[in-house]
Amino acid sequence: MKKEKEYNSALKIQEGVSQPPNVNPDMLSSSRWKKRKRYTPDEFTEGILAGNMTILSQAITLVESSLAEHYEMAQAIIGKCLPHSSHSLRIGITGVPGAGKSTFIETFGLHIVGEGRKLAVLAIDPSSEHTGGSILGDKTRMEQLSIHPNAFIRPSPSAGTLGGVARKTREIIILCEAAGFDTIIVETVGVGQSETAVHSMVDFFLLLMLGGAGDELQGIKRGILEMADLIAINKADGSNKLNADAAKTLLGNTLRLFPPKPSEWIPSVMTCSALTDKGIEEIFRIVISYVNITRQSGYFEEHRKKQAVVRMHNTIIDYLKSSFYNKEEVKAMLPGIERQLYDGTITSYNAALILLDKYLKG
Amino acid sequence: MKKEKEYNSALKIQEGVSQPPNVNPDMLSSSRWKKRKRYTPDEFTEGILAGNMTILSQAITLVESSLAEHYEMAQAIIGKCLPHSSHSLRIGITGVPGAGKSTFIETFGLHIVGEGRKLAVLAIDPSSEHTGGSILGDKTRMEQLSIHPNAFIRPSPSAGTLGGVARKTREIIILCEAAGFDTIIVETVGVGQSETAVHSMVDFFLLLMLGGAGDELQGIKRGILEMADLIAINKADGSNKLNADAAKTLLGNTLRLFPPKPSEWIPSVMTCSALTDKGIEEIFRIVISYVNITRQSGYFEEHRKKQAVVRMHNTIIDYLKSSFYNKEEVKAMLPGIERQLYDGTITSYNAALILLDKYLKG
Repeated sequence: MKKEKEYNSALKIQEGVSQPPNVNPDMLSSSRWKKRKRYTPDEFTEGILAGNMTILSQAITLVESSLAEHYEMAQAIIGKCLPHSSHSLRIGITGVPGAGKSTFIETFGLHIVGEGRKLAVLAIDPSSEHTGGSILGDKTRMEQLSIHPNAFIRPSPSAGTLGGVARKTREIIILCEAAGFDTIIVETVGVGQSETAVHSMVDFFLLLMLGGAGDELQGIKRGILEMADLIAINKADGSNKLNADAAKTLLGNTLRLFPPKPSEWIPSVMTCSALTDKGIEEIFRIVISYVNITRQSGYFEEHRKKQAVVRMHNTIIDYLKSSFYNKEEVKAMLPGIERQLYDGTITSYNAALILLDKYLKG
Repeated sequence: MKKEKEYNSALKIQEGVSQPPNVNPDMLSSSRWKKRKRYTPDEFTEGILAGNMTILSQAITLVESSLAEHYEMAQAIIGKCLPHSSHSLRIGITGVPGAGKSTFIETFGLHIVGEGRKLAVLAIDPSSEHTGGSILGDKTRMEQLSIHPNAFIRPSPSAGTLGGVARKTREIIILCEAAGFDTIIVETVGVGQSETAVHSMVDFFLLLMLGGAGDELQGIKRGILEMADLIAINKADGSNKLNADAAKTLLGNTLRLFPPKPSEWIPSVMTCSALTDKGIEEIFRIVISYVNITRQSGYFEEHRKKQAVVRMHNTIIDYLKSSFYNKEEVKAMLPGIERQLYDGTITSYNAALILLDKYLKG
């Protein structure tokens, strides 16, 4: 266990305030779970597999915690749930600021549960420090979806490094799948590297954009366009429709510039409106058609397996980096070395050697 | 020195065949350099600063070598040349396959030396295994430039990891600058990650494309478009002119999608023909105007300083990664762990922990 503790501290996973569980009283399958008590990992797993939302929420809280005892418990539960996971469809959704992500997920999510599916909505936001207030905020943003009996909305784990938040989100997916959710939406706020993390844990990546062929489109981060399996230009309603159509043409031309995807799937661009419901059904049809095609070709399963390997390597590299940069000797020396680099009195390579030497000796 | 040797072996820098020096007899400033002998670092530096091409070539050969004695000597020379370096303009050139990179560099380079500048052309190609034959090949590709007294063409260091090749190229730039070259072109073959490496060592990044709005454009690698300070669509001559114009429009629209650059420079797209000389002069005018604007804003110098810091961090991460993945215990265990990940019997996070544990204990 010492190792894990070191690991957590190396990754700078901060002591987060435990989140109040996201309880939906209608979902309680039995009254014996109602009172919060200390369950064993077996009891947790049993409750999760029975689809008990209170137990699921409590288990997620353990995953999000950084107390050593919670860590052990969480890993035991995840291990037991693992064989029951992975039978879902995982959709990543990101969007430029102002693209109406919450409203879109509300409408899209209601369509998904309307088809008889069970939906969990998770979020990755390494910068977030969710309090009780902002959980309510999330629920208010998705008013109808949050009270739907077949939907489960959970905000991002509390602040930490992207690597830490991404791992926890991945573990929460396992728990949600074991609890019977057959559709998972992972939302990302569209800042920094979080899209890459989401892309590495979903089957299908949906990019939400805004109409207006000018400045509004400039919010696209490097590399995100290439990740998209579908681009939906939201708010294509009222006076904004023409702008949306222009953006559709522009983005459609742009997509043609990129090399073919390993999935052989050809991404397309469409317009939609979460306000008027326009295009929402079609988007889900496209997702389903993606799943059918890639399952048939074998890519779907193969891709998931590769994702698992990639995630392992990313975790390793995160650890190695933070172990290096959190070393006291390195921290103490770095500013001086960087100054020498700025002054041009040392080569980058020699600067690296000096720091590595300190690290390895320390 | 033990550290450096370990470092080199960790980075898997392979024992490369020493390259025959790229001698241009016209450039010999004094006959006493003519015979290859063992110089001291001071003599090497003196010769390089005097602009002696034979000495420069021999020093580069030392940089490219992976013999421990050559390594020490090379580092001593680089250290002495460092204060005399960095007074040049560094241009990165990459292009999709078939874009006519060699012909372009020949024409573009002749224009540059025609303006009274001294030009060194280097290449980054981590996959290359240059023999005497392919050095001749490089020279044949740039027939006139290679015999011009103010031009120096040097192929990529022999095969090794990208990190190793990039470091050596960076060190060769230092030597060339100390030898009085005021313009450096670093060419990359356009495969894999080498563009990012080149981008991290040049002031201006030129992307060569081909006309034809269809499949021909699909060769663009992820993230390269965003790097470009200028896109030149080559071979805009004869029957290909219409295609080039179409590509210009398409790429111009695409560039508008990206967020503004930190340099505040707005990249543009133009057509050119290395065959008819069309646009070649204008491209160099654009480069010079970039330098003037960014020097005035202070970005030029600031950017170079940041590049040095980034290169140091990249070197550190390369080392940490290769130290981990080359560890015998890790190598022995990895295939089994990956199989478990494929089978879904272990989480990525636990898989990483197991390997890290082996690594740290070993």
